[in-house]
Amino acid sequence: MSRTLHIDGEGALRTLDQTLLPFENREIALRSAEDCRRAIATMQVRGAPLIGAVGAWGLAFALREDSSDANLGESWQRLVAARPTAVNLRWALERVLHRVAPLPAARRAQVARDEASAICEGDACCNRQIGEHGARLLEALRAARGASSDPAQPLNVLTHCNAGRLATIAHGTALAPVYTLHERGVPVHVWVDETRPRNQGASLTAWELAARGVPHTVIVDNAGGLLMRQRRVDVVLVGCDRVAANGDVANKIGTYLKALAARDTGLPFWVACPVSTIDSLAADGDAIPIEERDAREVTHVAGRLDNGRIGAVQVVPDGSAVANPAFDITPARLVSALITEVGVFEASRCDVARALAGIARSEER
Amino acid sequence: MSRTLHIDGEGALRTLDQTLLPFENREIALRSAEDCRRAIATMQVRGAPLIGAVGAWGLAFALREDSSDANLGESWQRLVAARPTAVNLRWALERVLHRVAPLPAARRAQVARDEASAICEGDACCNRQIGEHGARLLEALRAARGASSDPAQPLNVLTHCNAGRLATIAHGTALAPVYTLHERGVPVHVWVDETRPRNQGASLTAWELAARGVPHTVIVDNAGGLLMRQRRVDVVLVGCDRVAANGDVANKIGTYLKALAARDTGLPFWVACPVSTIDSLAADGDAIPIEERDAREVTHVAGRLDNGRIGAVQVVPDGSAVANPAFDITPARLVSALITEVGVFEASRCDVARALAGIARSEER
Repeated sequence: MSRTLHIDGEGALRTLDQTLLPFENREIALRSAEDCRRAIATMQVRGAPLIGAVGAWGLAFALREDSSDANLGESWQRLVAARPTAVNLRWALERVLHRVAPLPAARRAQVARDEASAICEGDACCNRQIGEHGARLLEALRAARGASSDPAQPLNVLTHCNAGRLATIAHGTALAPVYTLHERGVPVHVWVDETRPRNQGASLTAWELAARGVPHTVIVDNAGGLLMRQRRVDVVLVGCDRVAANGDVANKIGTYLKALAARDTGLPFWVACPVSTIDSLAADGDAIPIEERDAREVTHVAGRLDNGRIGAVQVVPDGSAVANPAFDITPARLVSALITEVGVFEASRCDVARALAGIARSEER
Repeated sequence: MSRTLHIDGEGALRTLDQTLLPFENREIALRSAEDCRRAIATMQVRGAPLIGAVGAWGLAFALREDSSDANLGESWQRLVAARPTAVNLRWALERVLHRVAPLPAARRAQVARDEASAICEGDACCNRQIGEHGARLLEALRAARGASSDPAQPLNVLTHCNAGRLATIAHGTALAPVYTLHERGVPVHVWVDETRPRNQGASLTAWELAARGVPHTVIVDNAGGLLMRQRRVDVVLVGCDRVAANGDVANKIGTYLKALAARDTGLPFWVACPVSTIDSLAADGDAIPIEERDAREVTHVAGRLDNGRIGAVQVVPDGSAVANPAFDITPARLVSALITEVGVFEASRCDVARALAGIARSEER
């Protein structure tokens, strides 16, 4: 699967402008720390792992301009403030910072570039491993349906927001197991939550599933509960932006409601994420900052106009107040499994610590 | 509060075209059974009580043209099929049918008109009584917050879809208690769910609350769970389209998810409806037909374009499959109270029967 980020011949970081998908395929070239910060803040790039990688490249660009301690500190601060909830941004920036801070200024730019590259390589590898671990769980679910069920009947996965290729470097987190299964020829179908207010499900998840030929059906965010009650869903599988030390999960607003419906209907609710998404400093979900975004995301809906252009319609009356929290917290008790690159864990304090230790061990090798 | 339906000087039924709100205030004139059927099917009028009233007028118009048994039966069938989930449509049509069927053809048209008028009067009266009963519950909730809380702090009601004036003849069902409280000067604030795919919350509930000066904030459907966890909601209050004999409730898609969040966060979840919404023939929620509507409601979002005109944007890629169930079932165990014109009931088989008996007794008087 092609990478979402690449460095072109002139040293610029190239990526798709995700605010134009699914109707326009336009690449942007990021050449400076400010280009990277703006792309993250305006959500031209989004998805916890992807904004970590773009943030790391931003810091590398900053050091190419000026590798002083002062610029390293200021650029780090500006980049980390671009989005508050996903902890991968801070994780990636800290990884670069810790590598370059002890070095003489003259060596920092090259080492930062190497580290940003390594973060991208690492994420692609994580994606593949999450795909393997998650596919094993999905296969087990399929086997548990028993011999009575039609083998041609697809496994039905419901996902919220986009935690696919576009949220990462290569295969995605929540969608990685789906792609792995699909590559093996196992029939799988995805219920795609629209994901208001920014519609990442309808515009990004549907688009990338179609590109890979994975059967899928777009639904409004309101519909998942009914489909679960009707047994038209086998599992809810989402990505996440931050896992607290106790296993509480911050993810796109509305995730909590799907976790509740999964619990109420006896379905598994799985969260797929690299270990870099775990924030051991956040004791629980209440310690995770929830980003409040622009009211216009709620008052206006972007899409393709009748004339083929990209435009927007206003859907809220002038003068009505609007609130727009971008994430919610799913308590650990509703999470059936955390699928990481180092294996599958329970959403418990003990198991989250084990997941962190797992990555520590693999880094020691 | 002005009525949503009135008969003009030429005998036409006039009402707002709700598909154009909140940006255009355009009245339509319904002059025939087919006009009424089409207005219901295209959702120019919607809301369980309102489509009942418009259906009754439709049957009266049909009998004015041709009051034969054959036309009575055919018109009844066509009208009742306009929308399948809300039982009030069938209820109102049966009320007219039972009044006129025993009569000589020559008397039917006038009696049907009188019955349609009576249904409208009755609904306005129900709205007011639901407002009184619900306001009592809301006042009790406010009192339970205790002396410690600031009296200027509003009671926070979260509602889904539109169960206000526009869904009924006058004051609404779920919004009736809000209006009653607001009229008494009690501070109340409404969290308005957008209500994809047709956005009745953003376009109708926000509009009518603004018209009455009730403070409100529009949110996407995904946001309510977080707000409940953050204690920014005191109660979830919705209308409904059909109550089964066991207390299961069919309402706008997404209602079930809000009921789950209310239960998980310890908040009351109230359903306001006239007794005509109870379907004693539906043993439970599984017996209630769920309307599947046009995919275009999901693929396209209607609103006001930059040029001020009403238009739409496409939000789903070409070729992606779409599902669009319009209602879901909230199991009785999640419903804290049914607020009807004859009082407040539990969502239990026994209490639902009592509610039905309550209306029967009042008809005997």
